[in-house]
Amino acid sequence: MSVVTSTLPSPAPIGSRTHRICLARGDGIGPEITDAVLHILREAGAPVEFEPLELGERAYRAGHSAGIPDAAWDAISARGVLLKGPITTPQGGGYKSVNVTLRKALGLYANVRPCMALHPYVPSQHPGMDVVIVRENEEDTYGGIEHRQTGEVVQCLKLISRPGCERVIRYAFEYARRNGRRKVSCLTKDNIMKLTDGLFHRVFEEIARESPELEAEHRIIDIGAARLATRPCEFDVVVTLNLYGDILSDIAAELAGSIGMAASANVGGTLAMFEAVHGSAPDIAGKNVANPSGLLLAALMMLEHLGEQAMAASIHNAWLRTLEDGLHTADLMNEATSKRCVGTREFAHAVAMRLGLAPKVLKPRTVDGTNVLQLRSCAALPLIATAARAEKRCVGIDVFLDWDAHGRDAAQLAPQLQAAAGTAFRLALITNRGVRVWPEGHTQTLCTDHWRCRFLAQDDHCGHAMLLALQQRLLDAGLESIKTENLYTFDGERGYSAGQGE
Amino acid sequence: MSVVTSTLPSPAPIGSRTHRICLARGDGIGPEITDAVLHILREAGAPVEFEPLELGERAYRAGHSAGIPDAAWDAISARGVLLKGPITTPQGGGYKSVNVTLRKALGLYANVRPCMALHPYVPSQHPGMDVVIVRENEEDTYGGIEHRQTGEVVQCLKLISRPGCERVIRYAFEYARRNGRRKVSCLTKDNIMKLTDGLFHRVFEEIARESPELEAEHRIIDIGAARLATRPCEFDVVVTLNLYGDILSDIAAELAGSIGMAASANVGGTLAMFEAVHGSAPDIAGKNVANPSGLLLAALMMLEHLGEQAMAASIHNAWLRTLEDGLHTADLMNEATSKRCVGTREFAHAVAMRLGLAPKVLKPRTVDGTNVLQLRSCAALPLIATAARAEKRCVGIDVFLDWDAHGRDAAQLAPQLQAAAGTAFRLALITNRGVRVWPEGHTQTLCTDHWRCRFLAQDDHCGHAMLLALQQRLLDAGLESIKTENLYTFDGERGYSAGQGE
Repeated sequence: MSVVTSTLPSPAPIGSRTHRICLARGDGIGPEITDAVLHILREAGAPVEFEPLELGERAYRAGHSAGIPDAAWDAISARGVLLKGPITTPQGGGYKSVNVTLRKALGLYANVRPCMALHPYVPSQHPGMDVVIVRENEEDTYGGIEHRQTGEVVQCLKLISRPGCERVIRYAFEYARRNGRRKVSCLTKDNIMKLTDGLFHRVFEEIARESPELEAEHRIIDIGAARLATRPCEFDVVVTLNLYGDILSDIAAELAGSIGMAASANVGGTLAMFEAVHGSAPDIAGKNVANPSGLLLAALMMLEHLGEQAMAASIHNAWLRTLEDGLHTADLMNEATSKRCVGTREFAHAVAMRLGLAPKVLKPRTVDGTNVLQLRSCAALPLIATAARAEKRCVGIDVFLDWDAHGRDAAQLAPQLQAAAGTAFRLALITNRGVRVWPEGHTQTLCTDHWRCRFLAQDDHCGHAMLLALQQRLLDAGLESIKTENLYTFDGERGYSAGQGE
Repeated sequence: MSVVTSTLPSPAPIGSRTHRICLARGDGIGPEITDAVLHILREAGAPVEFEPLELGERAYRAGHSAGIPDAAWDAISARGVLLKGPITTPQGGGYKSVNVTLRKALGLYANVRPCMALHPYVPSQHPGMDVVIVRENEEDTYGGIEHRQTGEVVQCLKLISRPGCERVIRYAFEYARRNGRRKVSCLTKDNIMKLTDGLFHRVFEEIARESPELEAEHRIIDIGAARLATRPCEFDVVVTLNLYGDILSDIAAELAGSIGMAASANVGGTLAMFEAVHGSAPDIAGKNVANPSGLLLAALMMLEHLGEQAMAASIHNAWLRTLEDGLHTADLMNEATSKRCVGTREFAHAVAMRLGLAPKVLKPRTVDGTNVLQLRSCAALPLIATAARAEKRCVGIDVFLDWDAHGRDAAQLAPQLQAAAGTAFRLALITNRGVRVWPEGHTQTLCTDHWRCRFLAQDDHCGHAMLLALQQRLLDAGLESIKTENLYTFDGERGYSAGQGE
């Protein structure tokens, strides 16, 4: 029970530095898997001290709609790190997810999801798979800004910001460098979304240039996702936008073996939250059957984040050895490699007993002595200095109308718009759901009641008062705008997409 | 060579009805795989007559920026059906894809992608897989409506319309019914995008109710995609929004064996286009090595669309038998099942020679005599009658600002906005990238230069003139809006999402 090989790190000396962090035990199976994880951390001598928080069911019942008491906000801000068990969000009644609330309010911009196969102990069709998905965690269509402005059409805003791209992409490269990774893949759909996904891709290229020692590649999301789903071993670190990352990280976790064993880190500039991906599973709560591995892996990511790479590696290796020894919780039982079905507590004891041992088949986690810098410090890296502010010039406006007259024939709408355009503007095009319907539409185009009417300033420049005057003339003509999008150039470069056929 | 079993359909009598359709041979390998497909159709006696079109390279060179001459538009509109070989879009110079142009301009609203495993002849880890992805083809973020309005933030509109949802979902159910399918799965992210994805989900539920004989299920896209990637045999017909469908259809094609053998139908109310998913592969053009299977499968979908189910099944079975007999083009060569590597022409001849034969191992395609209704007619099904028009009431406006003053502190911005709100409006909240920053923001929230300021009418109703007056007051205070989103209720129900924390 003490075969520590020389390639394995030994735990950092206890007491050299103690990290004080917040702990939420969670609901359902949360308390018992938390106990299991704490047992292992304690036995390993992990230099952490926990401040317990009441997040979740109790807090909801006490009237906090997001399940977070005020004291918890203060504690998280003070400690900077939270290890969180799974939480049950009550259905209906306007309750909000603890998770989403913390992520958004605390600026936890990077969601980090390692997906490593443990075949044959956890069967996977991709035994060599070892992928880390770094997902942008705040932007994209997940900002939840939606509007219904006509009978037929609803809209969601996809917002992408340069600093938002910069910090998550920079984090992905730092993560890759400090964890001995070789490649960072960026997945976007910038062949279609040239401005939004194009920005993410462009920032990726900029930051990749600063890390010539890492391979950097870009793939289009559709075929890239297909490759990840069929050949995950081709990937190492993946960085992508929120929505794509949401989909890819679940795919990768399932391919690796089980979403039930997955952990994630939600990392921000000054704060970070670590959790298992699975839910609170109230049906098996209190039965000592839940697998604590997801939360344990989350705790190990936390240790790495705190700079305790050697401690994390030591526990990771004991955990791998436990799996190799065939001591499996019920969810992992398989004919080929399981020797004994153990409970939550017994599994934790088995891991603790193996501290100091290395796995014999699976690849042991090792630590390169030069790489023990805290990820915490890299999460807070300063953003790239803003480029000199571009000269911004307003050149027109897209006015959107709810219009359901004249058989929805754009040719009937255009003259009214042209009359309102006056001498200051010209009507450039009308689209319906992005498809040009004037000038020169196609009869096959489905026209909803939602029209985008593009007005360009006659002399290539217009002030805001002119835009309001145009809207007033439209209003006088009985055409109420339901929304507007101003058109700008930045240093002479067009800041808006051309209409299809424009 | 004539073991026609009684369970197999015999081809429809030749000459009973001849369909006139448009044919574009395409670029690169296009002409040779088209010849191969035409040989098979001819030998099978398929009742189709082709009108050749010049789409692609020649048309681009002749000055048509989308590769489509005027005469081709007329021909496609007149014939209603196009079989299209792969086309090379020239790089740069403002050339547009023939594909995307046709899809959008002609209202080809459903993209249908069957993904069937042919294991062991085309190796797949999911031998029983037989999934059809029906992807909405026009809406979502693919409308290409993007705006940059501040130095840091770019935006893309995600537009979802009720009629757009209705017709693709209705098509999916009709497709399922007429092709002997049992289940339709809908995938959305409506736990986050409650209005847009919520609309798609709601329309799915409505239409599912009309087809009680088909199983209908909804899954969240992240875990649904993970299931599709790991257990595709659980799926039958999948219907989903444009972006999700783009990703899922490539994943499913790769899982089934090869994206190089995939075909797709782009179906509209009056027109349809059928094509292979792969590209024009100029590197192997003219060498008689390309696999014509993708375009052949596209032609078979075309026959089904035309109501020639029996003819399609007969050719499909001959093609399956050819694969079983181990006559494989270079891309399919594998140790386990390949007997001979054949060229494009030889493969086509081998299929033609097997007309009337059934596969011995793979499942033969059969036709139920009651199901020969044309899919063409179902594509043109009338939309659900519009519900009585809801009472729409304007209750406020979201004004977006480019603001980069006072250290980007929302608490400094709010008083200026409150002053401009006057007596008619009250400032309800300010968000930055969807995160509330006023009232009661968190210091950890990253603030870009892009602010959403929500004004609600004091008496719960406002006219358009009031909205313009508000913008004028903001302008007078030096705050120019960069975009606006009006806030409406529909029959009293809120048509806009609450701000996080509102």
